[in-house]
Amino acid sequence: MVETSHPGNIGAAARAMKNMGLRQLRLVEPRHFPHPDAEARASGAEDILQKAERYSQLAEAIADCDIVYGASARQRTLHWPQVTPRELAEEVSQRPLSKVALVLGRESSGLSNSELQLCQRLVTIPAAADFSSLNVAAAVQILAYELFLALAERELPPLSSPSAASRLVSSGEREGFYAQLQQTLIALDFLDPTNPRQLMPRLRRLFARIELEQRELNILRGILTAMGKRLQ
Amino acid sequence: MVETSHPGNIGAAARAMKNMGLRQLRLVEPRHFPHPDAEARASGAEDILQKAERYSQLAEAIADCDIVYGASARQRTLHWPQVTPRELAEEVSQRPLSKVALVLGRESSGLSNSELQLCQRLVTIPAAADFSSLNVAAAVQILAYELFLALAERELPPLSSPSAASRLVSSGEREGFYAQLQQTLIALDFLDPTNPRQLMPRLRRLFARIELEQRELNILRGILTAMGKRLQ
Repeated sequence: MVETSHPGNIGAAARAMKNMGLRQLRLVEPRHFPHPDAEARASGAEDILQKAERYSQLAEAIADCDIVYGASARQRTLHWPQVTPRELAEEVSQRPLSKVALVLGRESSGLSNSELQLCQRLVTIPAAADFSSLNVAAAVQILAYELFLALAERELPPLSSPSAASRLVSSGEREGFYAQLQQTLIALDFLDPTNPRQLMPRLRRLFARIELEQRELNILRGILTAMGKRLQ
Repeated sequence: MVETSHPGNIGAAARAMKNMGLRQLRLVEPRHFPHPDAEARASGAEDILQKAERYSQLAEAIADCDIVYGASARQRTLHWPQVTPRELAEEVSQRPLSKVALVLGRESSGLSNSELQLCQRLVTIPAAADFSSLNVAAAVQILAYELFLALAERELPPLSSPSAASRLVSSGEREGFYAQLQQTLIALDFLDPTNPRQLMPRLRRLFARIELEQRELNILRGILTAMGKRLQ
């Protein structure tokens, strides 16, 4: 949860999570936390509040996550891969060993564009066209409910862990790739840092649609490293 | 909503309803209503609070309804026809002319047995076995969400009509990209044509997972062209 204004919403989100079997709450710069309102609304889920981890940046909070979904009510100008809560749950249930993040933004304004670009997908909760912005804890409730249903139905995960090569890359590794890509494009005079336009967002959006494996990331970074040496 | 203790929950329920296109709220002996907490949590759904009807008995509140569902977290000794929220939504969507009531009980103790007997069916929200009681407004949110999905016309308009820039690339255009990628990697000494290993198949597999748009292909080919010039 990013920069949540009302501590009651954090408590309500913790309760919604625990109701649906989710446990790990991460808070990025909550305005008031801990707070009695959070405790009151948690109503039996105080353990989740007590174990909640705090971060100063969203990028840090999701650095170890394999798939990151950003909740967004709004249609963005830059079209990002977008799923419904049910599609999200379906995707997640098919990847039992992945570490998945659901990112919820501010009550007033949601997630910023730069925060959304840290996400591989947007999840938009279907709602009435004339009143489509849900309370943030209500959004957590719906997402957690869909996950609960999908995960309850799924078969137990295989015991074997995926090999290192086919393991999905984490959000932090993905960011490392984007940083190297950006540097290379600047060195190549393809990207003008004084007038970047939408180049990096477009490339992020492109790669966000692939669930990159470790080995694939190594290939892409190897190409960039080779190019970087030649450009020196 | 029957004998709701916390007015904030009434407001949150109103917002959840309006988010999902429901309008008619009936309150049976709310403890505090109207109340500023209800207004605050309604957050744009105050119209539903203002039009809410008050009753002193559940039986009166549901007298004109054709089908009455009572929300219940507990397994009752008296076995009553029981559905999930999704089954409820399915049933309701098949009875478009019915007047349907969803009955939500007290925060502390839900609905009494005599109240449940006024209902034709119980609806139980799937939840974690060790923490299965949802906040009453969160329960309204899930029920209303399932109804919205079932009742909303499923043929949603596309997010935007695809422009030329967002048209998907053809197979031929994709092959042109792979050919240029291969030439660039050879020029970069990253790919050895006498010992190509699995490099191109791996890169093809990676990009095959993206439905590339025209504009994106132009960016990728632009990067390769810039690289090619520097490698000459």
